[in-house]
Amino acid sequence: MNDENLDYLRHSCAHLLAAAVMEIWPSAKRTIGPAIENGFYYDFDFSAQGGSASGGGEFHLSEADFPKIEAKMLELVKTWKGFERKEVTKAEALKLYKDNEYKKELIEEFAKEGQELTLYTSGEYVDLCRGGHCRYPDKELKFFDLLSVAGAYWRGSEKNKMLTRIYGTVFPTRAGLDDYLKRQEEAKKRDHRKIGKELGLFVFSDLVGAGLPLLTPKGATIRRILERFIVDEEVKRGYLHVVTPPLAKVDLYRTSGHYPYYKDTMYPPMKVEEDELILRPMTCPHHFMLYKSAPRSWRELPVRFAELASQFRYEKSGELSGLMRVRMFTLADAHIITQPEHAKDEIRAVLDLIDYVNKRFGMVKGEDYRYQLSLGDRKETKKYYKDDAAWDHAEHVLREVLKEVGAPFYEAPNQAAFYGPKIDVQVKNVAGHEETAFTVQYDFVMPKRFELAYVAPDGSLKQPIVIHRSSLGAIERTMAFLIEHYAGAFPVWLAPVQVTLIPIAERHVEAARKTADLLKNRGIRVEVDDKSEPMGAKIRNATLQKVPYMGIIGDKEVTQERISVRTRKGEDLKAMSLENFLSLLQEAIEHTV
Amino acid sequence: MNDENLDYLRHSCAHLLAAAVMEIWPSAKRTIGPAIENGFYYDFDFSAQGGSASGGGEFHLSEADFPKIEAKMLELVKTWKGFERKEVTKAEALKLYKDNEYKKELIEEFAKEGQELTLYTSGEYVDLCRGGHCRYPDKELKFFDLLSVAGAYWRGSEKNKMLTRIYGTVFPTRAGLDDYLKRQEEAKKRDHRKIGKELGLFVFSDLVGAGLPLLTPKGATIRRILERFIVDEEVKRGYLHVVTPPLAKVDLYRTSGHYPYYKDTMYPPMKVEEDELILRPMTCPHHFMLYKSAPRSWRELPVRFAELASQFRYEKSGELSGLMRVRMFTLADAHIITQPEHAKDEIRAVLDLIDYVNKRFGMVKGEDYRYQLSLGDRKETKKYYKDDAAWDHAEHVLREVLKEVGAPFYEAPNQAAFYGPKIDVQVKNVAGHEETAFTVQYDFVMPKRFELAYVAPDGSLKQPIVIHRSSLGAIERTMAFLIEHYAGAFPVWLAPVQVTLIPIAERHVEAARKTADLLKNRGIRVEVDDKSEPMGAKIRNATLQKVPYMGIIGDKEVTQERISVRTRKGEDLKAMSLENFLSLLQEAIEHTV
Repeated sequence: MNDENLDYLRHSCAHLLAAAVMEIWPSAKRTIGPAIENGFYYDFDFSAQGGSASGGGEFHLSEADFPKIEAKMLELVKTWKGFERKEVTKAEALKLYKDNEYKKELIEEFAKEGQELTLYTSGEYVDLCRGGHCRYPDKELKFFDLLSVAGAYWRGSEKNKMLTRIYGTVFPTRAGLDDYLKRQEEAKKRDHRKIGKELGLFVFSDLVGAGLPLLTPKGATIRRILERFIVDEEVKRGYLHVVTPPLAKVDLYRTSGHYPYYKDTMYPPMKVEEDELILRPMTCPHHFMLYKSAPRSWRELPVRFAELASQFRYEKSGELSGLMRVRMFTLADAHIITQPEHAKDEIRAVLDLIDYVNKRFGMVKGEDYRYQLSLGDRKETKKYYKDDAAWDHAEHVLREVLKEVGAPFYEAPNQAAFYGPKIDVQVKNVAGHEETAFTVQYDFVMPKRFELAYVAPDGSLKQPIVIHRSSLGAIERTMAFLIEHYAGAFPVWLAPVQVTLIPIAERHVEAARKTADLLKNRGIRVEVDDKSEPMGAKIRNATLQKVPYMGIIGDKEVTQERISVRTRKGEDLKAMSLENFLSLLQEAIEHTV
Repeated sequence: MNDENLDYLRHSCAHLLAAAVMEIWPSAKRTIGPAIENGFYYDFDFSAQGGSASGGGEFHLSEADFPKIEAKMLELVKTWKGFERKEVTKAEALKLYKDNEYKKELIEEFAKEGQELTLYTSGEYVDLCRGGHCRYPDKELKFFDLLSVAGAYWRGSEKNKMLTRIYGTVFPTRAGLDDYLKRQEEAKKRDHRKIGKELGLFVFSDLVGAGLPLLTPKGATIRRILERFIVDEEVKRGYLHVVTPPLAKVDLYRTSGHYPYYKDTMYPPMKVEEDELILRPMTCPHHFMLYKSAPRSWRELPVRFAELASQFRYEKSGELSGLMRVRMFTLADAHIITQPEHAKDEIRAVLDLIDYVNKRFGMVKGEDYRYQLSLGDRKETKKYYKDDAAWDHAEHVLREVLKEVGAPFYEAPNQAAFYGPKIDVQVKNVAGHEETAFTVQYDFVMPKRFELAYVAPDGSLKQPIVIHRSSLGAIERTMAFLIEHYAGAFPVWLAPVQVTLIPIAERHVEAARKTADLLKNRGIRVEVDDKSEPMGAKIRNATLQKVPYMGIIGDKEVTQERISVRTRKGEDLKAMSLENFLSLLQEAIEHTV
């Protein structure tokens, strides 16, 4: 089933949901019920409904009402042989919805815009609708599920009344629905906010502010490992890591064109003394300033400035989510300033780095991620910088590289950046949803704006092009992704605690501490659980904390100078010498599993 | 000579300077001439003086005039047998200075305050003065030197007229003066702004803003090495590194009491949506929020939260200086939250860490740095939190630790923080000037304000104390210090480039690149100088860039698979195998020289 047909199916199911709700609560007022990604919703106003669904008080629909609604949906759908379309006049439509101010508002609006007003009838249910339904609802609307209830303002504005939104989904097959629900279940279990709390990786503070996470020692350890991993790898690959301030004069972003273009998500400027400073939304202008701080010769190019760069975007509080959507993030950013003729080589090297990084996280190209070639539209001269030849050339270069390296990719028209086409790295999250993790952009506009130049071999001054890219994305978001990807069971090289040593009794604590020191000296991240709890409880704790290895130390182990090793998967690796344990750990770390 | 007598000597020399200037330019107007640290100055208004000192145009005094002035000073001082004091009435004083609006302003002011008006006469020179002179100017004022000319507003206010300030110094002995001038010369040569430019370590950008340095790849490399060094060392010593946001709601700093107390140097708040956010001037409240994010047991204490923490202070533009005084810095910060009974052990461990770090930079305790025990004043209840018992205890603890570890220290009354006494680490810079590099503070106030608590063994809730400390100071300032300390010739472990490989001719470039790759794989920071310049020029460049080792590769070296090694000091270590070169480098890195 293609996406359009799936949308039709889902929108049809929204009709069915509304029909069932109106049967059960006839005084409810219907509003709209569109198909959305992964399902549909329908918004109702239940305020005319006296008493709660379970009797007494104000009416509040809850998930407890779902079985009743779903049963009614199954009952009604039997009589739904199709969706019958009928055009009506404004007067007829208004008459039908005489007690429903929401539908009346829509009717007035549609009429004003000169749109046709159409009613769709299925079984005995009639609804104002623009169309887009499945053909045989009685046969097709079988594998649905109501998912959740939420409040939603009419037309999305907080000035309007709060309505009751019911979310649901429907699939063409039982397997499709089951698979979806299983994925959702899994995604819920792996939600990085949940695991982050369970493993104590990060917290929020009301006094600090929303969207500004505080990383605990464990969370900060993961971050440090990721940061060192990417910096070392980039340095090895010829990147020049720099450090630039996360704020600058507003003028810098006026020059780049970010301000006022990105103003909505930028923090407000701070006026102090003679300066008007602002927290940066992007790193590029800073790297351009570094580039311009000295004359550059063709011999130095490509210059690959990289930085773990703090950036600030003021996301709306409603859009914030754990480490995934924050108000300050640290991008593994880079800007490659190069002669146009080397662009291809550079982009190829960037894709190789991205493959390397993704592979390190056990992601398979083509399965877990693929590339989107985002193109411009020559006609949209407002959205895209006007320079047809440059666009043609840049798009050609990106396409050629993707073909040459045999990367799985598809083309997306009208999705480019203002200043040029880009390759979006599309990664699947645990819910199976594909997201743009980060991008590789070809930029021929900023070099003009910032007058970037280099001295060519013939002594003339030439303009380079810029490749904007990330390798690991925003560290915060990558951490969120990895927490969900590994469900908190990080591979040994990334695990904030690699070993928990468990002394069986108080008298073994001393030996455990000594062993811990020996392991620490060899670079192992180790903790001793010296709480006065039984061994079983300690093993359970370490397992829940997803610590890869537990080392148990009791009388026998002390006498034999051995450690009994268990894994978080429950494997008993038996007693072994410290040296053998270390080899085992080193191997696990090196194999990054 | 004690400090007071030295001040007398210097102020006397200011009189002598004024006498000479008035002889040469009789229409100059005298203002004030105090002793300052390391010397004295005198401010003059030359605007009534027609023509430049060298004839023609507006009058501008320059250093070229110094020999003439100094000669006149030497001539006049022969007749200066002493300073004769004489009290005068306001009318007499005003009459003497009838054409000098500056002195008249002072006279009016002194008279209004009921101060005595006194004139001091030496030789034929008379000046309004409050006193404080040497006894035998003709014998004592010998070893002086005029240093520089600068503009200075009358009474320091930009609303007033700009005057000409002449700086000078005087010492009781020739050796004292020579030593001072030599140190100044050396400090000038080692100025981190000068060396930073020569070695390409950092730059500033008008578009980014004053006080916001951009670290080049080389500067960022030094910073990265320092950061990893201190983080690894702290983690080894039981610190828990965390990552907290560099901004927060203003409320957080209201709770801590930093706002509005530190408001003058804080950036202005940013109002967005529901929040009022501000860039942080301090990290402590953030660490307290982390501490409070979970209940804490005595078993966990001491909790040692550490962070490379960005902090923001809006220094006035006139006070900014290279990396030394900036508008954003990164402090190697930590807050140790502990039971009071463990405070001593923790402070001892902090001093040990500081010794370790300072030793790493070749600094000798007692010579290059010492400790200042900064105490509170029980009577100053506005400046210091009122709790006599807590002050007594905290001061006792700090003093005891300093004694126990045999640290060279002195006590400084009335120099504590608001919330408790502290140990200031006093470090000498290249000019011989002692500065507080960073501090170890004992805090019994913040735990109350933030209601920090832990569960004691008996189950009761107790209040910990907090030790604020830095180990490496602000990374920016430490970098400035180290640049001057090493005059840019960083020890091998810190050098941004450790080896420059120099191919003698174009045909050796290939071999040099291969060797570079081999060295890189072994973790060496290496560059190949492939410019088409003669070998001598390349050696000179690498030496000027203070690269510790140069590896020269020519026909002989390629044939024999050897490298001819030279050092930046000009030593020729002759040809050696790559393995031997690597051993040599490894040894130098490990010995941190």
